Amino acid sequence: MENIAHKFLVLSGKGGVGKSSVAVNLAVWLSMQSKRVGLLDIDIHGPSIPKLLNLESKGVQAAGDKIRPVSYSDTLKIMSIGFLLPDESNAVIWRGPMKHNLIKQFVTDVCWAELDYLVIDCPPGTGDEPLSVIQLVGNADGAIIVTTPQQLAVIDVKKCITFCRQLKLPVLGVIENMSGFTCPHCNKNIDIFGSGGGEKAAKELQIPFLGKIPLDEKIVVSGDEGKPFVLSEETPTLKAFTEITNRIEKLAEASVKARTR
Amino acid sequence: MENIAHKFLVLSGKGGVGKSSVAVNLAVWLSMQSKRVGLLDIDIHGPSIPKLLNLESKGVQAAGDKIRPVSYSDTLKIMSIGFLLPDESNAVIWRGPMKHNLIKQFVTDVCWAELDYLVIDCPPGTGDEPLSVIQLVGNADGAIIVTTPQQLAVIDVKKCITFCRQLKLPVLGVIENMSGFTCPHCNKNIDIFGSGGGEKAAKELQIPFLGKIPLDEKIVVSGDEGKPFVLSEETPTLKAFTEITNRIEKLAEASVKARTR
Repeated sequence: MENIAHKFLVLSGKGGVGKSSVAVNLAVWLSMQSKRVGLLDIDIHGPSIPKLLNLESKGVQAAGDKIRPVSYSDTLKIMSIGFLLPDESNAVIWRGPMKHNLIKQFVTDVCWAELDYLVIDCPPGTGDEPLSVIQLVGNADGAIIVTTPQQLAVIDVKKCITFCRQLKLPVLGVIENMSGFTCPHCNKNIDIFGSGGGEKAAKELQIPFLGKIPLDEKIVVSGDEGKPFVLSEETPTLKAFTEITNRIEKLAEASVKARTR
Repeated sequence: MENIAHKFLVLSGKGGVGKSSVAVNLAVWLSMQSKRVGLLDIDIHGPSIPKLLNLESKGVQAAGDKIRPVSYSDTLKIMSIGFLLPDESNAVIWRGPMKHNLIKQFVTDVCWAELDYLVIDCPPGTGDEPLSVIQLVGNADGAIIVTTPQQLAVIDVKKCITFCRQLKLPVLGVIENMSGFTCPHCNKNIDIFGSGGGEKAAKELQIPFLGKIPLDEKIVVSGDEGKPFVLSEETPTLKAFTEITNRIEKLAEASVKARTR
């Protein structure tokens, strides 16, 4: 872990807000800027990173007494419990203490080599897994909290921020995903999950707001096909996303400076 | 628990698929048919039932050495950890063993009195909470699995079914939520999360398919306002939902008959 310059946790208070999609696209985008990136998926019950990157058939290999992560590209390495399950319908029926041990192994025994960024995709909520990883990783730059705009999701953002504060993990900021939708036929706006709830919560809680990603059926398709949308042609969604990642990079630099001062 | 005729668990492999919304509307709808219904929310990190029913200001009271559930109506009683938290931004930072103890209390110490139905809303995934409740409740009619149509969600349905089979919990069926979307401006179909994925998975895994609920921005609003959509006027969504609940009632009767034969 000491050879990793920046560590982020991607958290969400609620499931299904696109947290793994944000984590994958952030990791791929950073790796496309010639950064050396690791992506660690600690969602033990529902690992979705292998599917999102079309790596379901891959397995991990031993490297001495360490585990070698799966290479997505020269600059991006991935580790997920999905690589250890015999097939995708297998359920991991483990209680908290066993999950803690697995996460410990993921944190200590994966040979990432030197990394500029480690992006950690946590399962939703404030349960055993994020608690374990925060305690085990130490010295993370902070948490990126993903939400959708509706009130029900925003309540869970507040829980998430309370959780980070109690564990003394800095919050880098909030991303509002599935924010607003434009009909592809008539180009009119449709408020499916609403818009602005995440931004409002960030303001209330005095947390940086990182930006909005519109709801876009192409993102769902790109997820199902295992092709991150940052690899696609320029779209309003991609533009919104790159602005967010630029903000995250700057905040990460500032966080490290503050820590080493 | 022995005074409860039917017990259902509402499960999902993945978060954000509308599981709690289905659980709430199922419970309210059954209670509107003059059934005596209990709704137990065991999502400890993100309880959303109090918000969905506009009961956030309510607290539970003691009744001797038991806990009295909150009354939504004469025929519907609710229990959720949300009623025990000082405010909605509080996060429960507990590991598995403490969660097991809380669920045990919820199962044994809440005075539901006689019920026709107990609907149990579980957190997403196959973690400590559903594992505990399945073991503690005993003799449930079965699980209702909620999914969205995209492939990524369907993988998690398979995990969920494997989980139920390993724990010998019957699966009543699969509900496909957020299935298809019609633009309210131009009335054209838009495939946001696709359609048919849950139905296909049910067929593959030889599990009854309970039906599709369309994506409907009115459901999001009704959730945020704390008014279950089964109380609203007749809409295609409501029609789809009542057909699903009719199927569930029939399956529940058959499940009890099979058990007592």
